[in-house]
Amino acid sequence: MEYSPIVQELIQSLRQLPSVGSRSAERYALFLLESPPEVSERLARALLEVKSKIQPCQQCCFFSESPICPICADQSRDTKLWCIVEKPHDVLKIEKTGAFKGLYHVLGGRLSPIEGVAPEDLTIDLLKKRVEENPPDEIVIALSADVEGETTSLFIAQLLKGMPIKISRPATGLPAGGGLEFADSVTLGFALNGRRQIS
Amino acid sequence: MEYSPIVQELIQSLRQLPSVGSRSAERYALFLLESPPEVSERLARALLEVKSKIQPCQQCCFFSESPICPICADQSRDTKLWCIVEKPHDVLKIEKTGAFKGLYHVLGGRLSPIEGVAPEDLTIDLLKKRVEENPPDEIVIALSADVEGETTSLFIAQLLKGMPIKISRPATGLPAGGGLEFADSVTLGFALNGRRQIS
Repeated sequence: MEYSPIVQELIQSLRQLPSVGSRSAERYALFLLESPPEVSERLARALLEVKSKIQPCQQCCFFSESPICPICADQSRDTKLWCIVEKPHDVLKIEKTGAFKGLYHVLGGRLSPIEGVAPEDLTIDLLKKRVEENPPDEIVIALSADVEGETTSLFIAQLLKGMPIKISRPATGLPAGGGLEFADSVTLGFALNGRRQIS
Repeated sequence: MEYSPIVQELIQSLRQLPSVGSRSAERYALFLLESPPEVSERLARALLEVKSKIQPCQQCCFFSESPICPICADQSRDTKLWCIVEKPHDVLKIEKTGAFKGLYHVLGGRLSPIEGVAPEDLTIDLLKKRVEENPPDEIVIALSADVEGETTSLFIAQLLKGMPIKISRPATGLPAGGGLEFADSVTLGFALNGRRQIS
């Protein structure tokens, strides 16, 4: 007894979701098959609506329903402090901290010769144009601390060289609430080198 | 920073899926937002296609793309042996065993006064009509062994009383490969009462 091609296609479509394997996808598909049509229709409608109405902000490339996103449009934010992130959800993560009141720039990925991601695949041209038109005082580059993240950070720092912009990155160190025994030696090394005076 | 109503609606739609909580739904939604439109469109299309093309079989109420499902239409199957199950995916589970070569009848649920499920909410009328038109020799009632399952089994057995049909149920006993130490006492009691001669 095999699933019909239509059901198999639904299972495959559900497997596109992150960390959904064949068993979860099958379970979701069976649930949808056994539910009233409204359940599937609501999901289908939401999927199409999101894709038709949500576009990258023309300034920072964050999700937006309008040409300029609510963060860029917010007059109370510090337009002289920017934060460069990889993905739109990094913006959400930083926003949740409440610790950053500047603007963002979403790169859309990281430079990676192995995966074939070149500067023109990212929003680096837009960043350059934006910096030239309206230069900030400081740019925080908040990319992951792996090889691609480092490469991308260096590339951007190079690009902005000679401009009177302070380039910074988030501190590396011990996680809040975490003791020494849980820190790996690289993190601990960074934490010691970056030590701060208490008083 | 809150999600826009469109994104919130997508998250809520995804939360309809079984065991998808708010964090998973948020992760799926962000993934879909950051993916090319084809990913969401494929899923939306598959959802609508399944709901428009897959209907209950007119005979047994299993999923079908045609008025009669492939199992009912299969000439090689034993039309005198039926199995009553609760949900379409129970059919798939039994089919995977390869141990049953008869036809099915999908009830669509179980009688439950508490949840307000009455006989007319299930496919019991259709079952009765089907039995009268073309009576089988044996019906296996394969519902869950909980209170609602037992009630529904008794209700159906009562309905078929007086007809020359053997009513049976799957054996209760120790799981294959499971030792005595893992069995609960009720199961072990059933297994002992239902003991079978070896030679």
